[in-house]
Amino acid sequence: MINASILGATGYAGMELIRLLHAHPKVNILHRISQTYIGKSISEVYPSFSGVSNDLCIDMEPAEIARQSDIVFVSLPHGVSADTVKKLRLENCKVIDLSGDFRYNSVSKYEEWYKITHPCPEMLQESVYGLPELHRSKIKSANLVANPGCYTTCSILGLAPLVSNKMIDSDSIIIDAKSGVSGAGRSISLGIHFCEVNENMKAYGVATHRHTSEIEQELSILSGKEISLSFTPHLIPLQRGILCTIYANLSGIHSHREIIDLYRDFYHEEPFVHIHGEGVLPEIKFVNGSNKCHIGFVVDKRLNRIIIVSVLDNLIKGASGQAIQNMNIMFGFDETTALAQPGWYL
Amino acid sequence: MINASILGATGYAGMELIRLLHAHPKVNILHRISQTYIGKSISEVYPSFSGVSNDLCIDMEPAEIARQSDIVFVSLPHGVSADTVKKLRLENCKVIDLSGDFRYNSVSKYEEWYKITHPCPEMLQESVYGLPELHRSKIKSANLVANPGCYTTCSILGLAPLVSNKMIDSDSIIIDAKSGVSGAGRSISLGIHFCEVNENMKAYGVATHRHTSEIEQELSILSGKEISLSFTPHLIPLQRGILCTIYANLSGIHSHREIIDLYRDFYHEEPFVHIHGEGVLPEIKFVNGSNKCHIGFVVDKRLNRIIIVSVLDNLIKGASGQAIQNMNIMFGFDETTALAQPGWYL
Amino acid sequence: MINASILGATGYAGMELIRLLHAHPKVNILHRISQTYIGKSISEVYPSFSGVSNDLCIDMEPAEIARQSDIVFVSLPHGVSADTVKKLRLENCKVIDLSGDFRYNSVSKYEEWYKITHPCPEMLQESVYGLPELHRSKIKSANLVANPGCYTTCSILGLAPLVSNKMIDSDSIIIDAKSGVSGAGRSISLGIHFCEVNENMKAYGVATHRHTSEIEQELSILSGKEISLSFTPHLIPLQRGILCTIYANLSGIHSHREIIDLYRDFYHEEPFVHIHGEGVLPEIKFVNGSNKCHIGFVVDKRLNRIIIVSVLDNLIKGASGQAIQNMNIMFGFDETTALAQPGWYL
Amino acid sequence: MINASILGATGYAGMELIRLLHAHPKVNILHRISQTYIGKSISEVYPSFSGVSNDLCIDMEPAEIARQSDIVFVSLPHGVSADTVKKLRLENCKVIDLSGDFRYNSVSKYEEWYKITHPCPEMLQESVYGLPELHRSKIKSANLVANPGCYTTCSILGLAPLVSNKMIDSDSIIIDAKSGVSGAGRSISLGIHFCEVNENMKAYGVATHRHTSEIEQELSILSGKEISLSFTPHLIPLQRGILCTIYANLSGIHSHREIIDLYRDFYHEEPFVHIHGEGVLPEIKFVNGSNKCHIGFVVDKRLNRIIIVSVLDNLIKGASGQAIQNMNIMFGFDETTALAQPGWYL
Repeated sequence: MINASILGATGYAGMELIRLLHAHPKVNILHRISQTYIGKSISEVYPSFSGVSNDLCIDMEPAEIARQSDIVFVSLPHGVSADTVKKLRLENCKVIDLSGDFRYNSVSKYEEWYKITHPCPEMLQESVYGLPELHRSKIKSANLVANPGCYTTCSILGLAPLVSNKMIDSDSIIIDAKSGVSGAGRSISLGIHFCEVNENMKAYGVATHRHTSEIEQELSILSGKEISLSFTPHLIPLQRGILCTIYANLSGIHSHREIIDLYRDFYHEEPFVHIHGEGVLPEIKFVNGSNKCHIGFVVDKRLNRIIIVSVLDNLIKGASGQAIQNMNIMFGFDETTALAQPGWYL
Repeated sequence: MINASILGATGYAGMELIRLLHAHPKVNILHRISQTYIGKSISEVYPSFSGVSNDLCIDMEPAEIARQSDIVFVSLPHGVSADTVKKLRLENCKVIDLSGDFRYNSVSKYEEWYKITHPCPEMLQESVYGLPELHRSKIKSANLVANPGCYTTCSILGLAPLVSNKMIDSDSIIIDAKSGVSGAGRSISLGIHFCEVNENMKAYGVATHRHTSEIEQELSILSGKEISLSFTPHLIPLQRGILCTIYANLSGIHSHREIIDLYRDFYHEEPFVHIHGEGVLPEIKFVNGSNKCHIGFVVDKRLNRIIIVSVLDNLIKGASGQAIQNMNIMFGFDETTALAQPGWYL
Repeated sequence: MINASILGATGYAGMELIRLLHAHPKVNILHRISQTYIGKSISEVYPSFSGVSNDLCIDMEPAEIARQSDIVFVSLPHGVSADTVKKLRLENCKVIDLSGDFRYNSVSKYEEWYKITHPCPEMLQESVYGLPELHRSKIKSANLVANPGCYTTCSILGLAPLVSNKMIDSDSIIIDAKSGVSGAGRSISLGIHFCEVNENMKAYGVATHRHTSEIEQELSILSGKEISLSFTPHLIPLQRGILCTIYANLSGIHSHREIIDLYRDFYHEEPFVHIHGEGVLPEIKFVNGSNKCHIGFVVDKRLNRIIIVSVLDNLIKGASGQAIQNMNIMFGFDETTALAQPGWYL
Repeated sequence: MINASILGATGYAGMELIRLLHAHPKVNILHRISQTYIGKSISEVYPSFSGVSNDLCIDMEPAEIARQSDIVFVSLPHGVSADTVKKLRLENCKVIDLSGDFRYNSVSKYEEWYKITHPCPEMLQESVYGLPELHRSKIKSANLVANPGCYTTCSILGLAPLVSNKMIDSDSIIIDAKSGVSGAGRSISLGIHFCEVNENMKAYGVATHRHTSEIEQELSILSGKEISLSFTPHLIPLQRGILCTIYANLSGIHSHREIIDLYRDFYHEEPFVHIHGEGVLPEIKFVNGSNKCHIGFVVDKRLNRIIIVSVLDNLIKGASGQAIQNMNIMFGFDETTALAQPGWYL
């Protein structure tokens, strides 16, 4: 049994960590840290935990949390997160950070897209980008894992086989992403008012969304050359789920058969990536509630262009589930522990 | 042409007033008063007005607004509203107030249910309860109309024929009401977060909701004796619309035919009340976008109980449409002006 | 390990049985019987099972299924179900039937409310009403369990402590129930068209819904005298969840404290019933994804009336979860096996 | 006053025609033709018309309809529509057809994308493509107008200024479109079941959707050379509205200012096209309930790519509203008659 603490336990990602870890036979949730709900039980904050957990949300110094915990999940806003993670790491505690603060190899990229000065740039070298399908071996020995963004995971997994095999024109990549509202978190603003979201759709962060740079970083590594691409997120009136529709010009003539083999080969033995056969494109109902990413595609022979559709649950494979997957790898647990349940279709 | 100004123009009720008055041939919207959006055009606040109105939201002293306007619609929070209305009335301007401040005959009832001291109790005598189906003649000559609450209108119209004819046991009335989220207005709180409302339902204000007292007041007048009843509102994941399911024990044996005749007689020539025939119960899709209240019912012979279903669009017949209906009556316009369009089914 | 087969495996209740049983360490799902999808894998019908189960849906004679299975879940339309259950029972296989066919003690009640002749009335004596909180000991030794209806479970659990203690006027019970759309199943009709349900609400089956009689039967047993009541279901635009708002006149003066003690006592040690304290009323988000029923209430002293709110997930505690709970009891497994996970709040 | 009849009056587009024409001072709706609801009043089929219209749905021979009507709106499935339109035109009645049957200049394009033989290819020459912003003068004198598709209108209006000024690389156009469910019509199938659509998103018709060819036809005419492009529709859980996110590589360096001027110039005096200024991208709430198309864009200087967002209400500017706009042009009415109301934001 290891002791895990959660910083930012009462946001949606924190809640989902608690829900999923509840089924983990080797993890004890030690502390639930929350500034907003100090002294409240987690079942008061989320009554879906009634009868399951009445543990209290507390405040505690990071150093003290670190000393008592084998691992700390940090689910705080970027900028704030880096400071806290620094204090946790000083006590040598393993950390999985869900913010963007440690996802970059390059400080200047971070500062260009986040428009702030990084509080501890020296720690970027220590951190490992927590996408198991690409960096499993490094994660295994990591002490600080930067859990990828939700859009990022969906986009990279959808493109990795093609990019690493140089089968697409890397200047032609366009990712049109659609997300449910839980990705915006639990903090309130006019933009998440039911009456403003319901029966509405909108694009946002066009040409400027931070996840663009994160996707570009990882695909550039895979490709061996600098990749720039368009990424457009949209807000859709539903709770959970991301669907990315990805367009790229094929660099040669490739059949659907050939490409499906490539994907299945690339993700061979990956427990959380599912490649659909010809004629099926994934919908978000296929993955909600699970830690899976589903991928399907159409080869448009008329235009020699591929259209890839990838989907995942933004709170699970796009956040808390992937964080647990990373923890499982870091501690030598079976990678699917607490993550093997099928999603809910309804 | 008359000049109408709107105080609280950028809330949902204010927006709906602007939208509906746009089609009114005898009304010029003079001022759009908003504390939140001073200097912004109404089409910046609600881009659905793009190309329709670029008029600016301004701030202005009530006395000045009153001097320039033939009528002022006041859509402010209760308590705040009373103060403003007082200033408007000092200039002899006609006022339609959408808050609860002037709906009561009895100051003590108001103070008991609203838990505040009424700022100008002397004005309650001047105000007329703006439910045209019950008080049309008084509205005609009123200078201050208290526009009824949304739940209230739906409940009273559903019960009035039975109560005024003493056909039900007045101790047995139970109103189970369900409302869309727009009734909560545009101000933000965790309770209207999309992710908290969507795929959820809840009861609130049980046994304490203020509209209870307003319904009781009007039904008591109709009945000639004091009526107390249960009223339970629920929040439902949709934007517009209220549905009231009303239960009452019949005081004698009455057929469906007899009661339908009673209702059709009671609402004879009412342009905005529609009584459905046997076998049809209204749904909120029947009325959204219109100023109508639809009513249907089932006589449960087994229990000698009637179950009435009444529906309306909370922003129209439940707020802004009814306010315009009152204005039409006050100024001698055809009562259906700007309100005659059918609702939208989708 | 026991072998369980599911008849009607591709409806929503069948799907949910498969999803939940997947986590059951002592159950092997042997056959998935479906008329509609013969030869298709369950993951083609519900791609959320991709990578989890590729077992095929088949057709098979009931007798043969019975011979191979330790238990069969039957999720077929009423009338159809009874015939099939009869064949299964001839082979002495244990059966849990999710239809209304075996829920009645009285054939005439069934025939009065279902408007059909019961195909095998003699089997009603053998069947046990599968509400563990009321009939656990009988379920333990039952061979045929009639799984209760979704509305029914929610209503009975909300009222049982008061009725069995005769604390309410049994003539005054009114149940106003609201349900998500999954309760209507997966078969198509205009009534479940997204555009007809979304942004809509409606009452249906008023004074005639079959679950009325089922609730009356169970409450009459508890009370020791015949109870008749009003039950009104409503369709609400969401997927999962039932919320019942229940009204009854208290037969004496009782404080909130007194009644909460009564409920906690009545449901003492029940793993799936949660009673909320004063000031909290359950919402359906509190239970979706779980096998729980949450109950809260308000005592309206002004009217000496109690308003009870009970909620559950119609596909779990209202159908498949309760069926598994019954199976656990019948086979001596821990009653919470495969049902202990907390719900999902989002 | 002219007499208008509607063939296919009880589908969603037919309903919307009736709703909008109700406010048209120069149009009398003569016949409502429906195979499904013969003998039912339109207010039985859509109770939102209660008290507004009790006219009956009838069946009638096309020739007879044509003889009695000044104009007939045909809202029937493609293939079926062409046959009927032929009969109507034989009687010299003006026709606006909402299907795809008469939208093509080339029979072979139609047959390639629709996979059927055109029943009356000779009539394609007579028909005019009913997009007023591009073909107003031809529409004025047309007898047969082919009303454009919903996706098509949104896509073409979003791209026309750039394509006709050759400011984008015509090989690089990608249209990622998202639509509400009403676009699928009122006929039932598993795909429009509330529980399958709600909390879901999916792409469909990828690389094969018929509207692709319609968009290509019109843009090729504007450009003067053959254009091929990617068009991907998605189904989104809401009722009304289409949002197109359009990507294209700029063929030179162009500022946002320059392009906005181009759009405003191109759509100068167009009553139903609104171009948003820098920093605002349209959302579907901006247009629902109106006949408007809103357009905004971002110039991504980093990639020299433009991202255009265009939105419209699929039932109004994407279908019935545009049909009425075409009728207004054909009969010399003010083009905005019955179409001038602002949309509803909620």
